[in-house]
Amino acid sequence: MTLRERLLGVIGDERRVSDGASIRAAHGRDVSHHEPRDPDVVVFPETTAEVSAVLALAHAERVPVVAFGAGTSLEGHVIPARGGISLDLTRMDRVLDVRAGDLLAVVQPGVTRSALNVRAGEHGLFFPVDPGADATLGGMAATNASGTTTVRYGGMRVHVLALEVVLAGGTVVRTGSRAAKTSAGYGLTHLFVGSEGTLGVITELTVRLHGIPEHVVAARAAFADLDGACAAAVALAGSGVTVTRLELVDADTMRAVNAYKGTAYAEAPSLFLELAGSEAGVEGDVEAARELVTDAGGSGWSEERESEARSRLWDARHHALFALQHASPGRLHKSTDVCVPLSELPGAIRHARAAADRLGLAATIIAHAGDGNYHVLFMLDPADPVERATAEELNDEIVAWALQRGGTCTGEHGIGAGKLRHLTAEHGDLIPLMRGIKELLDPHGILNPGKVLPD
Amino acid sequence: MTLRERLLGVIGDERRVSDGASIRAAHGRDVSHHEPRDPDVVVFPETTAEVSAVLALAHAERVPVVAFGAGTSLEGHVIPARGGISLDLTRMDRVLDVRAGDLLAVVQPGVTRSALNVRAGEHGLFFPVDPGADATLGGMAATNASGTTTVRYGGMRVHVLALEVVLAGGTVVRTGSRAAKTSAGYGLTHLFVGSEGTLGVITELTVRLHGIPEHVVAARAAFADLDGACAAAVALAGSGVTVTRLELVDADTMRAVNAYKGTAYAEAPSLFLELAGSEAGVEGDVEAARELVTDAGGSGWSEERESEARSRLWDARHHALFALQHASPGRLHKSTDVCVPLSELPGAIRHARAAADRLGLAATIIAHAGDGNYHVLFMLDPADPVERATAEELNDEIVAWALQRGGTCTGEHGIGAGKLRHLTAEHGDLIPLMRGIKELLDPHGILNPGKVLPD
Repeated sequence: MTLRERLLGVIGDERRVSDGASIRAAHGRDVSHHEPRDPDVVVFPETTAEVSAVLALAHAERVPVVAFGAGTSLEGHVIPARGGISLDLTRMDRVLDVRAGDLLAVVQPGVTRSALNVRAGEHGLFFPVDPGADATLGGMAATNASGTTTVRYGGMRVHVLALEVVLAGGTVVRTGSRAAKTSAGYGLTHLFVGSEGTLGVITELTVRLHGIPEHVVAARAAFADLDGACAAAVALAGSGVTVTRLELVDADTMRAVNAYKGTAYAEAPSLFLELAGSEAGVEGDVEAARELVTDAGGSGWSEERESEARSRLWDARHHALFALQHASPGRLHKSTDVCVPLSELPGAIRHARAAADRLGLAATIIAHAGDGNYHVLFMLDPADPVERATAEELNDEIVAWALQRGGTCTGEHGIGAGKLRHLTAEHGDLIPLMRGIKELLDPHGILNPGKVLPD
Repeated sequence: MTLRERLLGVIGDERRVSDGASIRAAHGRDVSHHEPRDPDVVVFPETTAEVSAVLALAHAERVPVVAFGAGTSLEGHVIPARGGISLDLTRMDRVLDVRAGDLLAVVQPGVTRSALNVRAGEHGLFFPVDPGADATLGGMAATNASGTTTVRYGGMRVHVLALEVVLAGGTVVRTGSRAAKTSAGYGLTHLFVGSEGTLGVITELTVRLHGIPEHVVAARAAFADLDGACAAAVALAGSGVTVTRLELVDADTMRAVNAYKGTAYAEAPSLFLELAGSEAGVEGDVEAARELVTDAGGSGWSEERESEARSRLWDARHHALFALQHASPGRLHKSTDVCVPLSELPGAIRHARAAADRLGLAATIIAHAGDGNYHVLFMLDPADPVERATAEELNDEIVAWALQRGGTCTGEHGIGAGKLRHLTAEHGDLIPLMRGIKELLDPHGILNPGKVLPD
């Protein structure tokens, strides 16, 4: 019997166990530059019991299993490096419960953050974590995603209260609770969050929601140079002003946005801010933020209060990736993801900019400036090995610079297949512990092999 | 050679390796009702290298080691259940660095939260986690402590960015980084936080700091009954009002405080609030909070803005435990610690109050109402086994009620020796995983044996 036939024995629905070439190809890549590799079979489970049955079979037969959500990972996380089964969880896409009085929701892993926000919004609530792409909650938990609102609300570890997880052999366990906090035993919820599908498959999540703020102001300012924009962002982040977003976009990206959208934004390094809360509090903070930004050399300060106008103001930030992709047809996206202590951010970005220029690489920079997390973005020619190698060389240099200053090689994208040696550089002393935990939970190494831990 | 003599071989300082009766007795108890048991030897290391040497010896000789800080745990965590070494870390009490620009501090494990706040305050910063007692940061991380400000700032897992940990065999590892966020490999920082000294000994912590808010308002109101106070707290927590503290104190406790302090507070269930931030924002929120509390039946609303007056207003909450202890000389403190989904809090407290009355137990109730975390406090006669058994019976009933409604047996005190069977009730399916992690990190079981995991 083929693997597909054996899987049909546990799933029993021809349409949900596929080895068709196009389906396999769609599950063999993410949105990054990483080399695709197709799975042998794609399975679309609809229940936790089906996930359990697939994992039991895979465990018994030593077949690799890679969980797949929206496929928007950036370090090759969902690419089946050793073939086997791609476990597509997008049919498990129900919001099971929105418990408004408890400020939480219970969701299946295939629910996207936009779908959750539609349901939460009916109760005046929202889920803040926003990693750019409309990722699934399961994928966001697996990669410990964060994004533009993390400066105010925190990332996935803060927002996941409880998980249902299927272990390698098919055992189903539940971590955490619906309480806002717990100290009951080891923090396994926090261990599965960020484990990138290598320790278990998440089949249900209980996540924190927040009240939609009554008053929101978006603002933007331009700067003479990147260094000035960066210094202003750091000053703002360290001030008493409560920002819900604090993003930096460089001049090249602004230029690409103008070309893509037909807009006429200042083609200069820019800060994008959002402040949210009660009207009185926000308006007081907006005034303080404007003064601080202007004193730091920001010009062309503009602010918006209405929802549509706010969206327009943020367009340049929201469409940065599309604009860059549009400006580079046929090229593949690669991004660095270091995060440094806040005071090191200006130096880090200066260093990265100079290094890219020295290597002659076309590179743009955006930053979640309030977290000290920045991305150097390359649009690489897949047919040019020299360009790819040069970008990788720069990534190494940027990571080394960050590690020397107490930073991390990845603020939010994770290790995947792309940062294995960087994890060793950052946490070599912890690799034996991580490997021990991996062997404890997945003794046959079937769960997303080749990711997180170097062989 | 005795154990003390062998330890002197690695520490080499007679004054810091003690088997004197009074020193041993001081390390054989915490502040709770748990049965004391003295360690065989108390060691006072001054460096990570000394901690490593002690753990290497203990690992080789299979001697139990219990890390000891301020001794303020509530579930017997620091009591050497199997004798052996009490590792008193209070000489490792240096604030190594306050990096104001990075909003973080690097501290040794014996630094108390008040000592850290003195140093952070010099930079206009503060560390918010406040578990009542003036605990050490090492102990607070080990038990995943939280407290009155958790409703706004989160507990220890949110605040610990990085750890230095000595493993059972003496190996020193470092988790996390100085960056505000990281997705570099498995979340080992979050695993060591809350592991209660059973997976390693924390020898250094990097913790997040926050800017001291420019404007703070404290407020208090009384209610006709506990249910009304509780409902008002839940409504407030679910509203858009940003509270930094939201505490409930019952009438019996207010009565004990009046007796202890000679004050004349309303002897009625009371809510204590704190709001902090920019002046405009806070004043807007105070007005909204006052309306909400008054509409919910609160009376005698009072509010204070100056530091001393705010402290006086909060006195009744801050001195609740002292007052209760003072009212019950010679009795031992026992507290439940369940945390329930927010909407379940009024029902939970009604149930607990009724159950205590039915069992004829003198019990008072205070709650971190904004988190759904409440404590039923008993002052037990150590010579009365029936009273102790009855209190334990009530604890079981309260835990069972919470677990049925998605809550947890412990919001902040941890498992220790006192909640082993409650952990099994709550997370029986996870015990094998937790035990596997324990065996991986501490194969000879020398680290705080008898805690967290049932034998």
